[in-house]
Amino acid sequence: MARVSQEHLDARRRQILDGAALCFARNGFHATSMQDVLKEVDLSAGAVYRYFSGKEELIGAIVTEVLDEIRDTFEAAARQRPIPPPDVLMGSVMNKILNMKPGLMHEGQSVFPRLVVQVWTETLRNEDLSRVINEGYVKVRAAWVKVVEGYQDAGMMRADVPPESVARIMIALAQGFAAQMALFGAVPVEVLREGFRGLMSMGEPGSRS
Amino acid sequence: MARVSQEHLDARRRQILDGAALCFARNGFHATSMQDVLKEVDLSAGAVYRYFSGKEELIGAIVTEVLDEIRDTFEAAARQRPIPPPDVLMGSVMNKILNMKPGLMHEGQSVFPRLVVQVWTETLRNEDLSRVINEGYVKVRAAWVKVVEGYQDAGMMRADVPPESVARIMIALAQGFAAQMALFGAVPVEVLREGFRGLMSMGEPGSRS
Repeated sequence: MARVSQEHLDARRRQILDGAALCFARNGFHATSMQDVLKEVDLSAGAVYRYFSGKEELIGAIVTEVLDEIRDTFEAAARQRPIPPPDVLMGSVMNKILNMKPGLMHEGQSVFPRLVVQVWTETLRNEDLSRVINEGYVKVRAAWVKVVEGYQDAGMMRADVPPESVARIMIALAQGFAAQMALFGAVPVEVLREGFRGLMSMGEPGSRS
Repeated sequence: MARVSQEHLDARRRQILDGAALCFARNGFHATSMQDVLKEVDLSAGAVYRYFSGKEELIGAIVTEVLDEIRDTFEAAARQRPIPPPDVLMGSVMNKILNMKPGLMHEGQSVFPRLVVQVWTETLRNEDLSRVINEGYVKVRAAWVKVVEGYQDAGMMRADVPPESVARIMIALAQGFAAQMALFGAVPVEVLREGFRGLMSMGEPGSRS
């Protein structure tokens, strides 16, 4: 038997994950069978099961990969000086995620928002996935906490607000935008940034007059 | 046949909607059958089908009811003077929704966050529900636009930001918090308010020093 290079193995794994993500985004987890995934990636069962034991493992791997990407982006942002304001930071993270896999489209749009919403629903009834999501969320939140502490250290945000609470708000915003894109179609990232700037400008009545 | 009062009809309709919401939140739409709903509300098929033709109609009615409640709350807020700041407004709306049906609990928590996330997923594959959600979203967004215009008129927010964009941000926040509560359990509304206050306080580096 010919030896198979690590590069080949990685590319094959990548191909399976992308094909599975496309199937899940299109039809949801329950309506997608492993047969659908095999057909999508045009590989034999033997070739696919060598990498993944089944749907559950595929879902877990896809979710872990996306959450790691998000965390890396925020951690890189937290190290920048000057630290980018949240409208810039969130806009660039959203762009990065939406363009992470330009080939993965459903009806002309990135599959990610649809995939994210389906993952949430699946999480409500799947304890393994719930654990993956919880671990990912803890990491993303820790990365955001560093960003918020950066804002406070630079005197860009009042220091008497717990960074944890601001981190939750920032993550909620990203989650909500994902939901809106899944439900109502693409939202220009500029809209998110404008809205952020409005919120950041708020003060007591008359303070902006 | 005895005449049935409108009050009785309304109470019966209410009972069916609440029982269905509980079933859907617990097990999801696909895994819930009309038989499960009948069992939950302890009524005969004849009694239930007199009000609702099936699961689809139940889902549509539940979603419409929740969205109308949210819109009413924001419209009432937009009429208040002085207009409540967003952390207060959002906190009170979240509290109102979470306590809308104190009897509807799943594992000690309000069913609404779970229900909301499941509705989103269902919307991706159900055109009727998609229409209901879209109409509701347009109404909630219009209500939020009035609130944002109120902030701008009162000089509480910069006036050069499109109210539509800020409205989307506010709705994204509420959606994201619903997702977090469904996935990770109850979040004290105070956390949301603190996070909001942090974001609202932001400015150029050194502006808060």
